[in-house]
Parts: sequence; structure tokens; C-alpha cells
Amino acid sequence: MYELGVVYRNIQRTDAATADGLAALGSATVHEAMGRVGLLKPYMRPIYPGAQVSGTAVTVLLHPGDNWMMHVVAEQIKPGDIVVAAITAECTDGYFGDLLATSFQARGARALIIDAGVRDVKTLKEMNFPVWSKAISSKGTIKATIGSVNIPVVCAGMLVTPGDVIVADDDGVVCVPRAIAAKTLEAAQKRESFEGEKRDKLASGVLGLDMYKMREPLAAAGLKYID
Amino acid sequence: MYELGVVYRNIQRTDAATADGLAALGSATVHEAMGRVGLLKPYMRPIYPGAQVSGTAVTVLLHPGDNWMMHVVAEQIKPGDIVVAAITAECTDGYFGDLLATSFQARGARALIIDAGVRDVKTLKEMNFPVWSKAISSKGTIKATIGSVNIPVVCAGMLVTPGDVIVADDDGVVCVPRAIAAKTLEAAQKRESFEGEKRDKLASGVLGLDMYKMREPLAAAGLKYID
Amino acid sequence: MYELGVVYRNIQRTDAATADGLAALGSATVHEAMGRVGLLKPYMRPIYPGAQVSGTAVTVLLHPGDNWMMHVVAEQIKPGDIVVAAITAECTDGYFGDLLATSFQARGARALIIDAGVRDVKTLKEMNFPVWSKAISSKGTIKATIGSVNIPVVCAGMLVTPGDVIVADDDGVVCVPRAIAAKTLEAAQKRESFEGEKRDKLASGVLGLDMYKMREPLAAAGLKYID
Amino acid sequence: MYELGVVYRNIQRTDAATADGLAALGSATVHEAMGRVGLLKPYMRPIYPGAQVSGTAVTVLLHPGDNWMMHVVAEQIKPGDIVVAAITAECTDGYFGDLLATSFQARGARALIIDAGVRDVKTLKEMNFPVWSKAISSKGTIKATIGSVNIPVVCAGMLVTPGDVIVADDDGVVCVPRAIAAKTLEAAQKRESFEGEKRDKLASGVLGLDMYKMREPLAAAGLKYID
Amino acid sequence: MYELGVVYRNIQRTDAATADGLAALGSATVHEAMGRVGLLKPYMRPIYPGAQVSGTAVTVLLHPGDNWMMHVVAEQIKPGDIVVAAITAECTDGYFGDLLATSFQARGARALIIDAGVRDVKTLKEMNFPVWSKAISSKGTIKATIGSVNIPVVCAGMLVTPGDVIVADDDGVVCVPRAIAAKTLEAAQKRESFEGEKRDKLASGVLGLDMYKMREPLAAAGLKYID
Amino acid sequence: MYELGVVYRNIQRTDAATADGLAALGSATVHEAMGRVGLLKPYMRPIYPGAQVSGTAVTVLLHPGDNWMMHVVAEQIKPGDIVVAAITAECTDGYFGDLLATSFQARGARALIIDAGVRDVKTLKEMNFPVWSKAISSKGTIKATIGSVNIPVVCAGMLVTPGDVIVADDDGVVCVPRAIAAKTLEAAQKRESFEGEKRDKLASGVLGLDMYKMREPLAAAGLKYID
Repeated sequence: MYELGVVYRNIQRTDAATADGLAALGSATVHEAMGRVGLLKPYMRPIYPGAQVSGTAVTVLLHPGDNWMMHVVAEQIKPGDIVVAAITAECTDGYFGDLLATSFQARGARALIIDAGVRDVKTLKEMNFPVWSKAISSKGTIKATIGSVNIPVVCAGMLVTPGDVIVADDDGVVCVPRAIAAKTLEAAQKRESFEGEKRDKLASGVLGLDMYKMREPLAAAGLKYID
Repeated sequence: MYELGVVYRNIQRTDAATADGLAALGSATVHEAMGRVGLLKPYMRPIYPGAQVSGTAVTVLLHPGDNWMMHVVAEQIKPGDIVVAAITAECTDGYFGDLLATSFQARGARALIIDAGVRDVKTLKEMNFPVWSKAISSKGTIKATIGSVNIPVVCAGMLVTPGDVIVADDDGVVCVPRAIAAKTLEAAQKRESFEGEKRDKLASGVLGLDMYKMREPLAAAGLKYID
Repeated sequence: MYELGVVYRNIQRTDAATADGLAALGSATVHEAMGRVGLLKPYMRPIYPGAQVSGTAVTVLLHPGDNWMMHVVAEQIKPGDIVVAAITAECTDGYFGDLLATSFQARGARALIIDAGVRDVKTLKEMNFPVWSKAISSKGTIKATIGSVNIPVVCAGMLVTPGDVIVADDDGVVCVPRAIAAKTLEAAQKRESFEGEKRDKLASGVLGLDMYKMREPLAAAGLKYID
Repeated sequence: MYELGVVYRNIQRTDAATADGLAALGSATVHEAMGRVGLLKPYMRPIYPGAQVSGTAVTVLLHPGDNWMMHVVAEQIKPGDIVVAAITAECTDGYFGDLLATSFQARGARALIIDAGVRDVKTLKEMNFPVWSKAISSKGTIKATIGSVNIPVVCAGMLVTPGDVIVADDDGVVCVPRAIAAKTLEAAQKRESFEGEKRDKLASGVLGLDMYKMREPLAAAGLKYID
Repeated sequence: MYELGVVYRNIQRTDAATADGLAALGSATVHEAMGRVGLLKPYMRPIYPGAQVSGTAVTVLLHPGDNWMMHVVAEQIKPGDIVVAAITAECTDGYFGDLLATSFQARGARALIIDAGVRDVKTLKEMNFPVWSKAISSKGTIKATIGSVNIPVVCAGMLVTPGDVIVADDDGVVCVPRAIAAKTLEAAQKRESFEGEKRDKLASGVLGLDMYKMREPLAAAGLKYID
Repeated sequence: MYELGVVYRNIQRTDAATADGLAALGSATVHEAMGRVGLLKPYMRPIYPGAQVSGTAVTVLLHPGDNWMMHVVAEQIKPGDIVVAAITAECTDGYFGDLLATSFQARGARALIIDAGVRDVKTLKEMNFPVWSKAISSKGTIKATIGSVNIPVVCAGMLVTPGDVIVADDDGVVCVPRAIAAKTLEAAQKRESFEGEKRDKLASGVLGLDMYKMREPLAAAGLKYID
């Protein structure tokens, strides 16, 4: 349940070094480092390929077909933030276009994550302002009902608390709670550090079966080879 | 993000009188009384029509295709509880059938709300154990990975905290946070108290246009009648 | 594209004898009699099984999450009408419940066809007021934006003009344009008149292959039997 | 890939005692007895609740919007068969209604499993002829293109070979290959034989945690209880 | 309901200057200028990004899996037209490929809008022939049943009358009725003319809250700031 | 139904010349040459546009959320193979990323076809390793349950037998059974050989109506032109 009609101005953001450091690791490695949790649903897709970002979450709760609070959240953005927008019911309307993107970008936002639709996607790409959304739609919205800013929200099935870190790339979007962000960065970097060596081995023709020593457990699980 | 591998044994349940009193009002009236929030997504459907319940939430977080924690949550059920089951990814498997229902019912559970599938639905109906689910599926599950019990979970798009009140009927499922449950009961009862009179008026042929005094605001909004 | 903000008070309804006569034939036979056209999409489902109705369409265009015009259309209902509600964008909210149903029924409406959600479905069933809808949802709506009444609308993919005949049953919903309603009734009755004899033959074990003389055309199409 | 334009008249059916015996066990128990495989996708739903059947599969491959082969498969039905209908592309049209059901029933068919739509569902229920389908739709079909009868088909994601056993109930549909049908019946009966005792224990308040001796493996997996 | 088996050769097209002028404004601005109506459903997506077109609609009604009428509509295309294809039931087959595109392009068509699937999408991109469709599919179609050309059709939920203007870009597809096309062009250009100034202000850091004078109405609506 | 826990090491692959020759023809032409069958469902989409491949199928059956068998199938890959991965239930998890792709590529695989999700899609594109999948998802998988390798599987609705030829491009994926691969190559090449001439005619303005001599059959079917 949501608290409606409030804007929290002071939120505790994850420290910038940690938040910034997670981008390079990518959503897949980061969610693995957390124990395979934290992902938003895979229907959240980038509006153009290639963007890979991380940043601190500022959240906004919107009503279906109403983007009034988008202007309210703009004022709360600080450089390095990523706006996370949740809607109180299913909606695919285009809540966000080039004008709002101009404003968000001027405030220092790095991206928008929205469980609804966006528009002006060609211009957003030219502006280099990435968005992960459920839909692309020309459908405009009204400005009639207030929601909230910087309350915990459920976006695409995942709870996002203001100040958490968002990591987003072509594979999807993951939310890293502030309390475990530093630990997650460390764990993800450790995972990443082993990848190069593994890749070289696999590229040389070594099989995962041998590299990960899987033959014995597979046989124990009953796997049979038939010629 | 979820805390994995923990079972909270002591949760603060909404008091029984409040929790029990909400059933009679139904999910639609209760969510209106909260300001039109708190509903789980409408894909959550009862496995048979006619059940109308309320109770205090005990929560369980499960992994896709794995119902091990269902047995763990069973022990935490107290009479008057409703189990709310969330899954870490989309899944339609049949996590719950007549044996678990027998156990849940023996512990005093009134219903199950699960963002996945159930099975043995014919027997569940005969047992009078209602379930609201995303799917019905014969597909069985394994018992291999641990989740958590009585942590806050996102179920069908809604955050549910242990001890909140769940109200479910043929129209859907709503979660009432413990902190506002008493106030919501009062507001919902007030709404309900006006309904009989309104219904009588409408049944006698009085129009909502007149009963709610809508003609003037409609004209102000620009509505035109054409003969 | 829709004309917004207008209510047409005078529409030309299909004559009552024709409109009423189509109910008994059912949606499948009627759509066949029109040349296999006129059906709304099959996601439109009855909220309870067993209802079979026909009547003249009065139409209403609504905005997502806003049921204000439902009260406006109520005044335009005449006995024998079926209300057809279209929405300007996808929405599953519960636009209609027991109070509006009481009003519609008092005005003589036989049913509601709505490309969105309804609620209070248990009460609607008790009232014997059938609804065909896209969803069932507790989610309430607001009353803020005007639409139109008795303009042609697209409901679940089908164009419905006020005064057309709607036929709805457990199989689905079909719209019969006023201009061809009488001819369609006649054609549908003719189709129906042959069904009893066919059923008797098939029940006695005669094959459709022989009754419809299909063996020759199937062989001509290249069908081969292999022992 | 499918062989088109052929009707295999002689298929090897699973023996009747085995095929008939599986009905009582239900789709969930049977699929568990096979190692949790064999289920059709859960979008396959019964058109009315309560039916529980098993029988030998006769298969038919149809083209989208074309039910010509339904008349061809009717001739191949023997008492105790269940017709399994696959379509070469996604389709929700109503391929099957009361006339075909009359013919199928006269030939001894027990049910239809179809990866598309059916109609006349009210009459089918009155006839006590159960159908599991992807959709209900009034939409009629044509008779223009030939498919095949009694070839292996993929229905709702599962390969069904003529003569296999189909088990269907409110939980879903499972296909048991002929070669393992007898063994599966035995294994399913064995599973079933333990259920009564388990149910009694659980009903008396014994927890699955204890009955299945899960406490130790859960602790070993790292589960922690917090007071 | 549709009139079947007819080809209207003479339709009243929106004048070319108006139809051509709308392309530059884009689907979002144009639908706003009409009062936020006229959009096809957002599942209609371009087969490649970057195309932005407008033109006069010629319409074709097709049956599922049958593209015969595509050849009939080709003859009715005049330079500057956009073909709008509707299907009498849901279908994702590939109705249109490089050969038909060659023919359409030779006749002067600028694009295809189809509520079904297309194929040869790599070649269509090389040909610079844009398509907005529901699906991409290799699945071929037959040529067996006649539909109609240049009747009003419902395409992706929107009524399109021959001669209307279609505007399509990466954000979606909008239909502008001929009767209001000139007025819509004017209104859209006016909207557009203010955008540059707004963008500059927002880019300089001015907030929408101030630029649109929203602070007072937000406070009036009850919005509270919490430090 | 699937045989679980087995790896067939010796499969009969379609000869390389035939398998390789089909790539250039594309999925649409190949499926037409087979009689419009053999296509996987159109929800299977390439992770990046432009790839066009063919090769011999090696198959793997996986459990939901478990990619253990991906390492087992890697060992069975021979140069020119395409891996076809089926899952025993619906799943969108990211079963495959850059490490497995490195291994598959080192073994000579040309592509992956998977009825689930993949990740590391930016890297896969850089590696020029194409994948056709149901989803893109960061969600990782576990390695706990064995499936099978090189058994016949149902992937996206189509039966694929090891050694069959897979043809995949931007339009979709088709499976050509080994037994008819040579014949299909020949038929597809023949179809293709006529395309150039047809394209030239259509480009010059000749109508399909005339080129395919459709005017007479259309008139016979009842098509009427109205001026």
C-alpha cells in the first residue's frame, strides 16, 4: 500500500563511488552477486540498445494516464540519480517524452525506469537519455491526480526504496538495496575478475564440463551417455 | 530485494476484530476506503466462485518451481491467518494441493494468495479452502532451495508486510497495512452504510445524474446533448 | 477517431421483434448467418455462465479509469437495450458494480458489454444482470473526464453503431448492424431449422463425411488413407 | 514438421484397462509418477469444471480457421478414445460445437483436447462432453484445406503420439506415452496409496516439516529462525 | 460488421498538402492535437526504427491466413497512400513480403499498417519500405477467400475510413479523420511551435513546476513536502 | 513426453551441403517449400537483427531455471551445428550468456535457438553469435537437475529431432526434417529462382492481379468493384 500525496525531500542515497561502480559490472553479474534476486521483470526493455548505467534511485508513484508527478520528481533529482516510476495500475501510456527528458537531464538524471510507456523515443536516443520501459506509446497523459515522490515503490514486480542503486543494461534492470550496495559491488567485482580466465579457457576448447568439474556430479545425478 | 533464508517467528498481527471485520465489506469497498490503492493485480483469480474472506498475512517467498518453504510457512500459521506467497520470478507451477491445504487448514489458515499456480482444485473446493492464484496447473515442484518466511514480499505487484490484513473475494484481493487497518474498517463501514439507500433510489428509477448532482459539472466540462 | 463530449439522444433502434428474436439463436449461429463476421474478440467473457441475451445497443465511450459517462448513458437506456462500453485505451479497472447495475436494470437494460473490468460480480449474478467483460477487478474509477454517448464505438475490435443488435451468450458476443438485422434473423432461423435433423443423424452414427458428402472433395484435395 | 494429407487408420492403442485406470488418479499424480513431465501447457482449461477423464489419443492436425479434418477424425474414433487436435499456427476460432460433439459422442469419444477454441459450450456441458481448450469462441471455421489424422502432433507444447493415454481434469492435461503407460499406472497408484495416511496426519496437526523430516536439510541449507 | 466482397474504387482522399504536412509533427503531437484520441493500440510496432511517414489511407479487410486481397488493394493505391490492413480475427501470419512491397512501392505507397504479421523484414528495410505490424512471422498465407477494399475497417482497435490520414513513427500510429485533418494540422503545428522555447527553458534548468505554474494547483490538491 | 537423463552421442546429421545450402533461402521460402509447415512460433525473435544461418540441430532439454545441461550439450556440438534448447515448462530466465557462447563457438556452433531467455546480449552481438529466443533476461539459473541431450524436443511449438536442419533469420525459425531436407532445398531454390523475374515485373508496375491471373478467380468468388 502506498502513502499518497507526499514528497520526501531528504533521502539517504548510496554513496556515489559504490553507485557509480556497479554500472560496469552489468545487471546479470550484479544480480548473481546478490544471490540471484533483485531483478525487475524481464518485460522491462531499453528503448534503444547499448546503454549501460547505474545510479541512485529517486522514486515516483503515478496514477494510470496521469504524469503530473513527473514534474514534481524532476525537482528532487540530483546528479547521478535514476528515476524509478511506478504506476498504481497497469498502464502503457506514454508518460515521458523529450521535454521531460530535457528537464531530467538538466537536473543530472542518468536514466528513467518506468513500468508504463514512453514516447519521443527517436529524440530520446539522439539525446542519449536511456529509458527502460514496459511499452512505447504515443498516448499522452493528463495532470489531474497527485501521487508521491521518494516513497518505496513496487516497479515491475520489485520493491525499490529511494537511495537504492539501479543497474540497467541490455539484459534488464536490477535494484541493489543501499544497505548491501558496497558488499554487492565487491562480490560482483570478484565474480567479474574470474571471467576473463574462464573465457580464455572456453575459447581454447576446454569444456565447462571439465573446467567446472561437472562430470562426476552429473553421473551421480544419473546422467547416462548412449552411443 | 529480498532477505533470503530467514524465518521470522514473531510478527505483529493486526488485531483479530479488525482483521475479521473487513471480510464482510469486500475488496472493492475496502480499497476505495483506502483511497483506491492496495489491490493486487487483477490476474489473481479465485479457483472457485463465492468465497469471501479476510485475515492476517503470513508471507512466504518461494523460488520458481520450488515449494519447499510452503512447509516452513505452515508452522508459522496461526488461526485467522491468510498465507501470501510470492515467487522470485514468473512461474505458473502448481505449488499447492490438497495435502498442503489439509495442513494449512489444520493450522487455522483461511486462504492462500499465491502469485503462481495451484492444483487439486476440485478437492480444494470440496475442502472449502479458497485460493486466489495466477494459474491452475498440475505441474509439480521440487524442494531444493530455501526462501524466507514473514519478510515483506511483493505479491502480484503489491507489497505485503506480515501482519497486514488481506481481503479477498470474487472481485480480487486487497492488502490493508496494519497501521491503517482500524481506520480503513471504519471508513469502509461508513461507505457501506450509505449503499442501501442509494440502491433503493436507483432501483426506483432515480438517476445517478440526479442523485449525485452530476448534471452541472458535466455541463461545465462541456458535455452537449444532441437531439 | 471519436467525437468527444456529445450525447446523442435520438438513435434509430432495430425493431424490437427482430432484436429480441436473435437471442434464442445464439452468437455462433448469428455470426455464421452474417457470413462469419461481426464478433467481438474472444477475450470478452461472461462474468457467470448461462446467460443468453439480445438487445439494441446504446453505446458509451469512456476514458481509462474514469466511469463518469456510465451515469450519462444510464439516462439514455430504454427497455430492451444492451449497453456497449468502449474505452479510449487499454484498461482493466472495475467500471461497473452493483449500484450502476441497479440503475441500468431499473431503466430496462438487459446486459452490459464492456471492454474493461467490472466488480461486485457475485451481486451481479444474484441480480441476474449479465455482463461480458475483458476483466474482473475491484479497482475503482474516478469521475473527471467526459466521453460520449451513442456515437459509433470500437468495442473489443468490433465497430458497434447505436441501434445495432447485440447477441451474447457463453460463446461470445456478436454485433448485428441494424440494416441487416431482419435478414440476419431470417438466415439464422433457417440455419437453425436444419440443426435438429442433422443432430439426429449424427447421434445415430451417421458420419459428417457422408452427411455432408465430403469424401469426394477430400480425395480430390489429396487426402490419403493408410492402413 | 508434419506429414500432411494422410489418415492413419491403424494405430496401436494403449490397452483399455491401463488407459481407463489412469483417470481416477488425476493429471497431477500421473505427471508426478512420470517424473514431472508430460503436461500440456496450463493455458489449456476445461470448458466446465468437474470432468475427470482418461482415454487413448486419436490425433488430428488442423489448419488455422479450418475444421474440415474434424469430420475425418470422427470416423477414426473408437470407444474410449480422446481426440487431440493440434493447429499448424496459433488460432482461437471455435472449431468444435454441438453437432461435432454429437458425432464424436456417438462414435464413443470421451473428450476433446484442442489447442484452439470451441463453441456451444452450454450445450456441450448439457451433453456431458468435456473439452479442454485454449479458448472459447463463437468464430466459425471453413472446410478448405486438408491436414492429417493419427500422426504425432504437438498440442499445447506437448508431443502426442496416437495411442498414447490422455488424462485430463480440472488441474490440466497430461499425455502418457503408450510404452510407459502400464508402468506409470502402477507408479501413480503407489503414490496415491500413501496419500490417505499423509492427509490424516496433516489433518491432525502434524507438520510436513516433521512428517517429511525436513528440519535437518533446511538447516543444512542455511535456513535461520529469528524470534 | 463488415461489407464483404466489395472494392470501392473512388474514395475521397484528404488533400495531399494536409496529409503530407502531418508527417513532420509525429504521432504523439498529432494525437494530442486531436484531444488525445485516434491512436492504434501500442502493440503496433515498426519493423525497423527511424521511419516517420504520413499519407492517405487505403484500406483492406483480410481473412486470417489469407492475403488474396493484398493484390486487389495494390491496384487501388495512388502515390502518397498508406495501406491499412485489418483482419477479421486475430492472426500473426506473414501476409506481406518483399514482392508485395515491390508492387506497393511501384504504385506509390509509402507504408503498410497491418494488424497481423509481415516477413522479409531485412529486405523491406533495404527497400526503405516501412511497415507497422503486430508481429513478424515467416508464416505464409493462402489466397482462397475474398474480403474488401476501401471500406471502413477497425485496425488495432481504431476505426480507419479510406481517405483518412495515417501518421506513423517510432512512437506508434495515429489516424486523423479527413474531416478534421486540416484543423488538426494547424493545431499540431501550433503545439509544435511552442516546443523549442520550452525545451530551451527546461535545458537551462527551469523546472516544469515553475514553467507550467504547477506549484499552486499541486498544493491545492493536497501535495505535502516532508524534509 | 521426454526421456530424461540421457545423452545420445551419435546422431544422424543432415549432410553438410544440404544443411548449409538452406541458409541463403531464408526461413520464409524454406517453410513455403515444405508446404507451409515447420515454423517455430513467432514469439521466437533474434537478439540482434541481420543474422541469417542454417545448420544441423543438436538438442537439449532443460528444466525451468536450470542450465546444467547446457554444459553437457556443448560437448556434443560439431562444427556446423545449431543448438536447439527446449524447457519442460514456461520460463524466461537467462540460460545462456557470453561464457557459454564462447564455449559453443569454440566447438563450432553457429547459433542457439532457445524457448526461454538469454543474457549478455551486447557481448553476444559483438561475438557475432546469434540467438533466437523467447526473452532477454538477466535472471541467472542453477545447476541442479539433469535433462537430456539429443532427444527429440518440442521447441516453441515445433518438434525438432537431432540432425534436422534449422534455418533462422529476421523473419523467424524453421525446422526441416532430415528426411526431406534435400528435397526441400531443391524446392526452395526453385521457388527462389522465379522471384527475380517477378520482382522486376512488379517493380515495373505490373500488378499481381495480372501477373498471377487473379482477376477471373476473384470475380468467380464474387468480388465486386464499385465506382
